[in-house]
Amino acid sequence: MTDHVCSAGCNHHSHIGESEKGEFAAGKEKVFSYIGKGSLKAAANSRDIRSLIQNNFEESKHYYIPAHADTVHWGFFSYKQKPLLTVKSGDFATIETLTHHSGDDYERMIKGDPGAESVFHWTKEQKNVDRRGAGPADSPIGNGGGLGAHICTGPVYIEGAEPGDVLEVRILDVAQRPSFNPEFAGKAFGSNAAANWGFQYNDYLSGVPREVVTIYELDAFEQRNWAEAVYNFKWTPQTDPFGVVHPTIDYPGVVVDHNTVQKNFDVLKGIRVPVRPHFGTIGVAPKEDEYVSSIPPNYNGGNIDNWRIGKGATMFFPVSVDGALFSVGDPHASQGDSELCGTAIECSLTGQFQFILHKAKDLPQTKLEKLQSPLLETKDEWVVHGFSYPNYLADLGANAQAEVFQKSSVDLAMRDAYRKTREFLMTTKGLNEDEAISLMSIGVDFGITQVVDGNWGIHAIIKKAMFPA
Amino acid sequence: MTDHVCSAGCNHHSHIGESEKGEFAAGKEKVFSYIGKGSLKAAANSRDIRSLIQNNFEESKHYYIPAHADTVHWGFFSYKQKPLLTVKSGDFATIETLTHHSGDDYERMIKGDPGAESVFHWTKEQKNVDRRGAGPADSPIGNGGGLGAHICTGPVYIEGAEPGDVLEVRILDVAQRPSFNPEFAGKAFGSNAAANWGFQYNDYLSGVPREVVTIYELDAFEQRNWAEAVYNFKWTPQTDPFGVVHPTIDYPGVVVDHNTVQKNFDVLKGIRVPVRPHFGTIGVAPKEDEYVSSIPPNYNGGNIDNWRIGKGATMFFPVSVDGALFSVGDPHASQGDSELCGTAIECSLTGQFQFILHKAKDLPQTKLEKLQSPLLETKDEWVVHGFSYPNYLADLGANAQAEVFQKSSVDLAMRDAYRKTREFLMTTKGLNEDEAISLMSIGVDFGITQVVDGNWGIHAIIKKAMFPA
Repeated sequence: MTDHVCSAGCNHHSHIGESEKGEFAAGKEKVFSYIGKGSLKAAANSRDIRSLIQNNFEESKHYYIPAHADTVHWGFFSYKQKPLLTVKSGDFATIETLTHHSGDDYERMIKGDPGAESVFHWTKEQKNVDRRGAGPADSPIGNGGGLGAHICTGPVYIEGAEPGDVLEVRILDVAQRPSFNPEFAGKAFGSNAAANWGFQYNDYLSGVPREVVTIYELDAFEQRNWAEAVYNFKWTPQTDPFGVVHPTIDYPGVVVDHNTVQKNFDVLKGIRVPVRPHFGTIGVAPKEDEYVSSIPPNYNGGNIDNWRIGKGATMFFPVSVDGALFSVGDPHASQGDSELCGTAIECSLTGQFQFILHKAKDLPQTKLEKLQSPLLETKDEWVVHGFSYPNYLADLGANAQAEVFQKSSVDLAMRDAYRKTREFLMTTKGLNEDEAISLMSIGVDFGITQVVDGNWGIHAIIKKAMFPA
Repeated sequence: MTDHVCSAGCNHHSHIGESEKGEFAAGKEKVFSYIGKGSLKAAANSRDIRSLIQNNFEESKHYYIPAHADTVHWGFFSYKQKPLLTVKSGDFATIETLTHHSGDDYERMIKGDPGAESVFHWTKEQKNVDRRGAGPADSPIGNGGGLGAHICTGPVYIEGAEPGDVLEVRILDVAQRPSFNPEFAGKAFGSNAAANWGFQYNDYLSGVPREVVTIYELDAFEQRNWAEAVYNFKWTPQTDPFGVVHPTIDYPGVVVDHNTVQKNFDVLKGIRVPVRPHFGTIGVAPKEDEYVSSIPPNYNGGNIDNWRIGKGATMFFPVSVDGALFSVGDPHASQGDSELCGTAIECSLTGQFQFILHKAKDLPQTKLEKLQSPLLETKDEWVVHGFSYPNYLADLGANAQAEVFQKSSVDLAMRDAYRKTREFLMTTKGLNEDEAISLMSIGVDFGITQVVDGNWGIHAIIKKAMFPA
């Protein structure tokens, strides 16, 4: 197990062949230069991407996983999903992730991008990524039924990981994915959809529900730290290449036909949204079902939608299947606590990660003892995640994946967050119950993570400065 | 109307007689030197405090209101409460506030303090502040029935304020109240009670409810910015001077007999709680009932329990009765978002305030148009407050003051916070509904204000930096 953290000037890449070395020097420019590599493009076209990953980096401790039809699973976690590669504890990976909302603006977010074109490719004859969601393959609205929405890159198999272990994932860096369309050089784009699963959907002033998509623009190289709106449009029924009509946003990856919508460019003029790049969905495979929707977060992580899961953050996940099967996706340029309308600024990102495996036998008397849910650590804080149901798959029985959306509750999530925070303080900090309860009342901040993902979330922020020793 | 803000070196006190001038120069030391003034002590003893206020400052624009049995109302707001004084828009006041938990440690928080001794004085023969709460005068547990807990200093009548206006209250400075007991010179103290109204009360690991009081120590002159625990004890039945036994914390201001409790000094060793001095209860009188419990916050402010209501914050309150009738109390040294166990570090404070009256006719097309709830502004943020019930007194009917405690809900508070934030963005920033909803999903943070005050609270934090123009 290594505690090394990748940083500028770091030379831990020495296992990489000389010809590749320069590609992985720290710095986002280098990350992106790799995206543009001819060999990668060729592989994307030839669909040999899996062999490329393995061949190029067989002896390396720092892997590179491009986003591609063959490297993603869409809308679900599954313990049966074939791993892309196996890493050892201590290894690094740079992983590209794509937003499932790229199709809201094909020109800005897909066109010319080999990864996005590969993943979103869908014609009458060919749908590169057929299953989207954990629903039935023969769903009338499409394979997977849209029970799950997020494009996840992975899974990564962690050598030696077994149920009962904890997987630590360090997010060393995050970079925006530039538009590959020369017309938008140097810019990145994201989409915010006020969607049917949003908190506002049945609570409009008019009383009439609608879905509205707003496209946001960012500086791809982060020379400015805000996003601004470009235009918005009201969702209209969209017909997918297989002829299915989608009256609402009910199935992911349907590319919007801009001839059917009315674009309004007079939107949020002069308003700057602070950029907080992070991964909405990040976690390991749950053991309960073969296909689990990517939408509700759970004990294994998944769609936590906490904007603090960005550069510098470390996540800890309880492992419940062999190899852990780590995946990441649902990249966001920015989100507020609550993700009120159903989405963030959904914007493709690339991350640099390091994996550390903590074996079950080593957990007692460490901060990870009794870990039963995704835990976030930043430089200054611990963040505990409570959900309406701590393990909704087990708590709600056979029909859990549908029922959880009918039983969403902030009140229940607050109850879970209280209990988990108490346990964290008692286990990790050695407090008794009365000490833990007093401290969480006077020094811990509880916030709304999200109210849109079925299994709603409350997080508790525990400042490390409270424990100077 | 003046926009002048009190600051160091400011000479706006020129209306004060020469002999008094030095007392009000900015700086907390001066505030406290005033507390110790012989004349004030004498007045406290003679119960002539009201005349002292009026006589000393008749021509002044900066008033001083000491905490005293005659300057506080305990556990309720009331439009019939006689104002202490009348101020004009633009005037200033330094106001002492006392925590209602001072009796948890008489030696540290009451002994030798003329204000606290006056307010807490309760013998078989004499109870200086008889009514505590909005309940019946003949309640078996004491006048007011403990339906309301907070010692509020006030009310202050704002000249010309009428229903429909908005009162702006600027919190210019906040200082801790030092212990007057020479044994604890230079220190301030607060109490945190894990109480029967806390979120944990019926959810202990043992399943058996208990109440636990923890006493915290602070540096009175803020040379260090954290609090640390001194000791804790489990609440035991306390008999008040009238012979009523209080098996739980059911009536405020019962001085704990330390001979009946087991003090445990081995508590939260080495843990430093960041100090966030603020006023838990601040607002104007509601029009609905003659006596309204101080516990549930409402449209008129009151027990909002947001730790951001400290130095540098400005509050805006909708006025619903003539003169507005501003009161402030429930001072806290620190609190986390949620105030989970029922209280903060309850610690006496003194604040410097300025009052600005905004007349109804001047509100259209300003940020205060349509204001229906307490609004907080800081240097960097707007904070909108949602509650389970936006006006529980009107929403829940005749029995509202009891029912609100049975109907507490974070889910409802989130609904209200969404609607109010939408209205704020549409009214104040001129956005349409779609713009407001997108922005609040990607750039507004919703947090748990409190889950312990009957009318539970969610706040929405809107960063001013989003609106550079």
